[in-house]
Amino acid sequence: MSVTAAQGFVASGVAAGLKSTGAKDVTVVVNDGPLKVAAGVFTTNRIEAAPVTWSRQVASDGRVDAVVLNSGGANACTGPEGFADTHHTAEHLATQLQATGRDVGPGDVVVCSTGLIGVRLPMDSLLAGVDSAVASLDAEGGQAAAEGIMTTDSVPKQAAFHGDGWTAGGMAKGAGMLAPGMATMLCVVTTDAVVDPATAKAALASAVSRTLNRVDSDGCMSTNDTVVLMASGASAVSPEASAFEARLTEVLASLSRQLVADAEGASHDIAVTIVNATTEAAAEAVARAITRSNLFKAAIFGNDPNWGRIIAAAGTVPESVAPFDPRTIDVSVNGVQVCRNAGVGDDRDLVDLTGREVLVEVDLKAGHASATIWTNDLTHDYVHENSAYSS
Amino acid sequence: MSVTAAQGFVASGVAAGLKSTGAKDVTVVVNDGPLKVAAGVFTTNRIEAAPVTWSRQVASDGRVDAVVLNSGGANACTGPEGFADTHHTAEHLATQLQATGRDVGPGDVVVCSTGLIGVRLPMDSLLAGVDSAVASLDAEGGQAAAEGIMTTDSVPKQAAFHGDGWTAGGMAKGAGMLAPGMATMLCVVTTDAVVDPATAKAALASAVSRTLNRVDSDGCMSTNDTVVLMASGASAVSPEASAFEARLTEVLASLSRQLVADAEGASHDIAVTIVNATTEAAAEAVARAITRSNLFKAAIFGNDPNWGRIIAAAGTVPESVAPFDPRTIDVSVNGVQVCRNAGVGDDRDLVDLTGREVLVEVDLKAGHASATIWTNDLTHDYVHENSAYSS
Repeated sequence: MSVTAAQGFVASGVAAGLKSTGAKDVTVVVNDGPLKVAAGVFTTNRIEAAPVTWSRQVASDGRVDAVVLNSGGANACTGPEGFADTHHTAEHLATQLQATGRDVGPGDVVVCSTGLIGVRLPMDSLLAGVDSAVASLDAEGGQAAAEGIMTTDSVPKQAAFHGDGWTAGGMAKGAGMLAPGMATMLCVVTTDAVVDPATAKAALASAVSRTLNRVDSDGCMSTNDTVVLMASGASAVSPEASAFEARLTEVLASLSRQLVADAEGASHDIAVTIVNATTEAAAEAVARAITRSNLFKAAIFGNDPNWGRIIAAAGTVPESVAPFDPRTIDVSVNGVQVCRNAGVGDDRDLVDLTGREVLVEVDLKAGHASATIWTNDLTHDYVHENSAYSS
Repeated sequence: MSVTAAQGFVASGVAAGLKSTGAKDVTVVVNDGPLKVAAGVFTTNRIEAAPVTWSRQVASDGRVDAVVLNSGGANACTGPEGFADTHHTAEHLATQLQATGRDVGPGDVVVCSTGLIGVRLPMDSLLAGVDSAVASLDAEGGQAAAEGIMTTDSVPKQAAFHGDGWTAGGMAKGAGMLAPGMATMLCVVTTDAVVDPATAKAALASAVSRTLNRVDSDGCMSTNDTVVLMASGASAVSPEASAFEARLTEVLASLSRQLVADAEGASHDIAVTIVNATTEAAAEAVARAITRSNLFKAAIFGNDPNWGRIIAAAGTVPESVAPFDPRTIDVSVNGVQVCRNAGVGDDRDLVDLTGREVLVEVDLKAGHASATIWTNDLTHDYVHENSAYSS
């Protein structure tokens, strides 16, 4: 149930000494075909890490043969030397894969890095790790691969969905700094469906926009965010484009939910759903304003269904973005309508916030569109982990 | 050195029982002329409290004779009944002032409220407080007036600047939830200069945009934010418009700095200055992106000059908003250039973050404009105060 769930893929994860803990820190995923179709989505942060610059170019032609990922260093803000390191890593993996009889060029190798910013990677350790990872490639290697990309994650994130003769699966890392335009988040999705590059690209963009881009743990967007999709065609099944996108969305939605559940220092996972908006974009904008409110997030940490903070956050969205009558909106928290027509509703003491999952629904009464953004509460542990940890 | 620093004003602050602590909670400020010129700036939050709706209308004709302010209840999200309460309060103050021989109509009375959202005001207590406040009006009443508007403030905020024969002074309340479009913030500024309504309005808008709107403690914008300026003309001095605006800016800058210093739960006051931007708007946008980053704010709490988080936040600003080359930006923290050309700069261990004030400077190397946004760090006490306190 990971990047090796689909046929045609081998993967591995090894410990190369990049992490001081001795945990796995280098992962390789290889598409053995017969198809070599791919698509990528990358951070929109203008401060992008060297591997993002490299991999954006690699994926642009719709073909990726292999992905090498390392934790223990982001290779961001490392200048031309850092870019050379990424290039060197791709060349090294291509050479090693050629030695195993695979016809892989460096221009078809995506590189992903995660960890501290502003520090060069220990290339000797990394390249030795690549050798070791290539030697360990296995059709059952998905679990080790998912472990190799963990940083502050407490668990590996994996998902796979089967049916109609084909499979899509994937892995992700990320545990905080989740934000639109993704997170400090690396994600590799594989499928054995037969799909063309244009369909793969459109489906990935759409699925990411409705899943990973709707997870917003703390509003911060990383320099390294990367999602790569590789299709091997090994099932020989060609699903409809809509079915392909739907299953891809299932995989990414599962991984997104796992990312929220593992966010650094969080005690609640919060789904903010806006209903009856004029457009999906309007619903998303209002949901995002609420999930960005530190006052709201701190209130949920305190098990306080503070609807005043919810509607005050909604009210910061300009009418041009989300038309609605601010005097008539309703708010429910875990099923209790605590705010009715922008005023006091049912007794807030009826709201049970002791569980991990919190469902906030805001009814704009303006149209028929809806959207959900996931976030986490703002906790003492969040402050502790992000003030004590240097990244 | 407050709202009674300028000639022509009387004020008072009394305890009317709206606060359970028995502290002062009703304040009145009266302009005794001879001039009755005024201007107002109000929250842009679409969820606006009843007193904001009322007072926006009152100030729109450039004349305000008196302001009544209460703490202990925001009168927000209280429906038509809440608006009637505001209207009733203005009428009551006007009647009481008429009884003292002043020619004041309710349509020239600004009403401000602050405290819990979604709760009706205890009108009997409030109106009795208005009576008591009118009886206490005094040309030395500024201090009591400033105390009457405190909520979670630990100190009253006041400022006054004199010179060239005229004075401008003011008071403010606010201690968190500071944000662009202001804060949960009430501010009254008085001056004895002779000024016309158009000049007053333009000067207030400009001064607010460069002071209160550049304080962004936690990115949350309240439903009640109000700034009112009243000019009595009692000095008989007519300053140049530029001199008038400059002094108004001094008053509001002082009050803004006091608000930052008293933000709920903060341990650092942080000035983020962007230099060499193409435009002031571009500089402000980049500064705001940084001051909104919880990762950056938590790092400063941990005394960590984490330049990676600073430039990653800067990188989220679209190029269309702030053109700059992300590969060449520099960052200094308290005078140490920890990041040079978006890479490692001087030794971060040289940065001393033990003081309360932190100065971050980001050089975009793109133009000649600059802007500063003030914020606070993200602390355990912020989370505690905003999860335990219901507002």
